[in-house]
Amino acid sequence: MLDKMLNGYKIILASASPRRREIFDMLGICYETQSSDIAEPLTGEDPALQAMRHAQNKAESVFAKSDQHSVIVSADTIVLLDGRILGKPESAEQAQSYLMALSAKTHTVITGICVRGAKGQRCAYEQTQVSFAPLTADEIQDYIQTKEPMDKAGAYGIQGFGSQFITRVEGCYFNVMGFPIRRFYEIAQDLLKKGML
Amino acid sequence: MLDKMLNGYKIILASASPRRREIFDMLGICYETQSSDIAEPLTGEDPALQAMRHAQNKAESVFAKSDQHSVIVSADTIVLLDGRILGKPESAEQAQSYLMALSAKTHTVITGICVRGAKGQRCAYEQTQVSFAPLTADEIQDYIQTKEPMDKAGAYGIQGFGSQFITRVEGCYFNVMGFPIRRFYEIAQDLLKKGML
Repeated sequence: MLDKMLNGYKIILASASPRRREIFDMLGICYETQSSDIAEPLTGEDPALQAMRHAQNKAESVFAKSDQHSVIVSADTIVLLDGRILGKPESAEQAQSYLMALSAKTHTVITGICVRGAKGQRCAYEQTQVSFAPLTADEIQDYIQTKEPMDKAGAYGIQGFGSQFITRVEGCYFNVMGFPIRRFYEIAQDLLKKGML
Repeated sequence: MLDKMLNGYKIILASASPRRREIFDMLGICYETQSSDIAEPLTGEDPALQAMRHAQNKAESVFAKSDQHSVIVSADTIVLLDGRILGKPESAEQAQSYLMALSAKTHTVITGICVRGAKGQRCAYEQTQVSFAPLTADEIQDYIQTKEPMDKAGAYGIQGFGSQFITRVEGCYFNVMGFPIRRFYEIAQDLLKKGML
């Protein structure tokens, strides 16, 4: 398991996300966090490639400042609806418009992750389909009042009040929370096997 | 949302499960818990019907002891692999045999829920497909040593160390944790609309 696999390594989670920290805590991994402060401009490029590049940039930025014996883990989550990327809402109005768009539809959540060790790195991504129930204007207003939508890509949190609106998930659930646990497990296992950490 | 919908009602969660309490806390619902101590013998009957009947028995048992103005919420979770029900393991050996059986396969998790108010009740169930990665004997041993499998149907917890073994979920994730949030939302909404709470 991951806590045993990574035991003895200095793991740095290059993320300020409380959800990712919660996942690392749940897995019993010993780690530090270091936020990367990398801007993540969204472009017209393939969303999976963008998510992986953002993750890689975060990992490289933290790795450059680390003691080179660290293992940096980073992730970047993108919410995609009908080909359009929904970022973190900049206002309550934008959150409302995102939630109206997500209502009664299935969207895709893509998380790119990057693991950077002294001898190499590996990037990958995972994608999950998430279906929303039809939302009323009142439900959207009540949800916005909880403030939960404001710091999250796509204006919702699957682990929180937002859970009430989700009818179905297809794929990795933790990917929607912002960190694809099983994918990370496989990458860590592979890097260790090849002596790259 | 549920916290607003159920505001003013005396909600009793008829369950001793920490996972269900965690979900109610996450949803901001004000509630008490009361464990029902109902035995749940597994029979050859349809698993979904069994899960609903167990949930209903738990709710009735707590309702009978309550002040009749309460709203009782109960749930019962069953893990089903190739038509066989995997209960809570009674020993480390049984946990090992369950985990070996789940390895590299997709199984079904069914949670029956029951909501019992003064003027009526509603039972329903939700089912979710869960896919396991191939597990090695070492992984299974390490996992059993965490003790996590011992108090859980099917010998794993999706929210915990067990998350590392799950490659895919199809359906309601919270159903696998033991409580189908969206289904409960719809039942509560319907019972309120019909004046049954």
